[in-house]
Amino acid sequence: MKKGNTIFFKNKPRITSFAAICGSKEKEGIIGEYADITLEDDMYEESTFEKAECKMLTNAISLAIEKGSLKEKDIDVLVSGDLLNQIISASFAARDYNFPFLGVYSACSTMSESIMLSAMMVDAGYVKRAVAATGSHFASAERQYRFPLEQGTTRPPQSQWTVTGAGSCVIQSATEGIKISSATMGRVCDFGVTDVNNMGAAMAPAAADTIMQHFKDTGRDPDEYDMVLTGDLGVLGSRIVKDLCWEKGYDISDIHVDCGEIVYKVIENEFQGGSGAGCSAVVLNSYVLSKMRAGLYKRVLFAATGALLSTISSGQGESIPCISHVVELEI
Amino acid sequence: MKKGNTIFFKNKPRITSFAAICGSKEKEGIIGEYADITLEDDMYEESTFEKAECKMLTNAISLAIEKGSLKEKDIDVLVSGDLLNQIISASFAARDYNFPFLGVYSACSTMSESIMLSAMMVDAGYVKRAVAATGSHFASAERQYRFPLEQGTTRPPQSQWTVTGAGSCVIQSATEGIKISSATMGRVCDFGVTDVNNMGAAMAPAAADTIMQHFKDTGRDPDEYDMVLTGDLGVLGSRIVKDLCWEKGYDISDIHVDCGEIVYKVIENEFQGGSGAGCSAVVLNSYVLSKMRAGLYKRVLFAATGALLSTISSGQGESIPCISHVVELEI
Repeated sequence: MKKGNTIFFKNKPRITSFAAICGSKEKEGIIGEYADITLEDDMYEESTFEKAECKMLTNAISLAIEKGSLKEKDIDVLVSGDLLNQIISASFAARDYNFPFLGVYSACSTMSESIMLSAMMVDAGYVKRAVAATGSHFASAERQYRFPLEQGTTRPPQSQWTVTGAGSCVIQSATEGIKISSATMGRVCDFGVTDVNNMGAAMAPAAADTIMQHFKDTGRDPDEYDMVLTGDLGVLGSRIVKDLCWEKGYDISDIHVDCGEIVYKVIENEFQGGSGAGCSAVVLNSYVLSKMRAGLYKRVLFAATGALLSTISSGQGESIPCISHVVELEI
Repeated sequence: MKKGNTIFFKNKPRITSFAAICGSKEKEGIIGEYADITLEDDMYEESTFEKAECKMLTNAISLAIEKGSLKEKDIDVLVSGDLLNQIISASFAARDYNFPFLGVYSACSTMSESIMLSAMMVDAGYVKRAVAATGSHFASAERQYRFPLEQGTTRPPQSQWTVTGAGSCVIQSATEGIKISSATMGRVCDFGVTDVNNMGAAMAPAAADTIMQHFKDTGRDPDEYDMVLTGDLGVLGSRIVKDLCWEKGYDISDIHVDCGEIVYKVIENEFQGGSGAGCSAVVLNSYVLSKMRAGLYKRVLFAATGALLSTISSGQGESIPCISHVVELEI
């Protein structure tokens, strides 16, 4: 059933197992004790950053399957994407498995788009079990989007730090696990921000748009949620999303948490906090889902946020179109 | 219902309207008289190739909506992607509309993945109307994947020519239109081809894998289809896919048509033929669907094919993982 842009799942597909891998810098923070694998060396015994990123994603997928006491043959489809050009991490990860692969791209909101599509397919009975996954790597993202690390370019104060990590979860019809009750599909919002270092400001309107659309479609108030979890708005973007929602009569200030804001221990060193597809993927698939399973949060609105730019589009003077897909999680 | 990797649609969602735009070179070929808009100048009155590509995609989307006597408000979701890094053509096209956007990436099999996901959402009743769309541009693809055109690099004989064009269709539950009966999700296949100029050879095993999976899952023989339409295997790839299927007991030689093989008038000039996400998008959404609507083809198996490489992956010595998603179309 659909109302507005929100799809309500009748058969409440569930996240039955999840896994996360994070890098050496990330393990110092809140997710360190919740992630399944934490790297000592972000090269992960590979010869390139891109291969390390792909290995993290592959291992997160395999781990999520394994932790659910499942085998490769039990999985019907993988829904995945990542930040690299032509989503090579996801495509090369999918090569290792015998199940079908649906490639998606939604920048840093890939985790919520993957979960949403997986939940749709499970809920409709098209597949029995789907895996949703994504990840990112600081070093591969820096050289693709910004500068080679070797150049030692200084970072502006409004910048964020791409999370090295990958997260994955298995979604199926089950009696136990974290329910996916509904999903609100995001629209592309562009408020004209052209500063590619200020992603938080660019993405905040898209997050606010889908979050408020969700409240409108469900007829609920923010206080009926334990947490509104945005993806990687960072410090500034988080202030903006709270302001934008407050202006329209939705006060999320007490329940809003941003994965980018909480992922690093000493946020001052990373300026605005973490970012990247791996940011929300790792925080959700370690800390947040663990706390939900333990009963600490009963209803979480997961709103990963993505900036849909490329170096070509900004080089040609375009502003940054952004999107946020929202998934409602319950126990 | 699902059998193997094939999803059977109970409510048979239908393609009710479609539109295609093609470039100046493409209009000389078979699709010239079927496309809705044919360009005189591939810059399409824009300042860059990328902006021209985006404009083609936007106009194909708008045209498909308009040709179905629909308005923007009647559309529930756009499923789209393209070949450019971070699928900027699709993201920037989506910015112009008020409906939600689901970004996908499946290289040149984006058209069939978009149709498949749209059909799933319509069939399950999650959305009423979805638009599936994709496109490509020769000049933007050349400079991203190969060399700047200004360099005048010679083309090897096994190469293909990226189609300048975009195609789009509206999918909804209806009593008229072209039925989408089933869809077979593709797996990533990699037979170790590393020659980035020989995409046909790389993609043929993936096409054969999903096509044969479809026959297996449906229990049908090739002669129950009027056409098996692959995306952009080109001359060599088409021979390989026919051989691979024949070896396993499926003779598709009489009914196989490749969009890349038929898109250009004088195929010798383009060596292996056309390629790119726009190739199958334009041929399907002009020539093939028009012929189906006229009753000339009753059952078509549409198997767009994608090579999931990037310049980074091949630069790092990786082979080319490929995929093909298959959609069964009927009248």
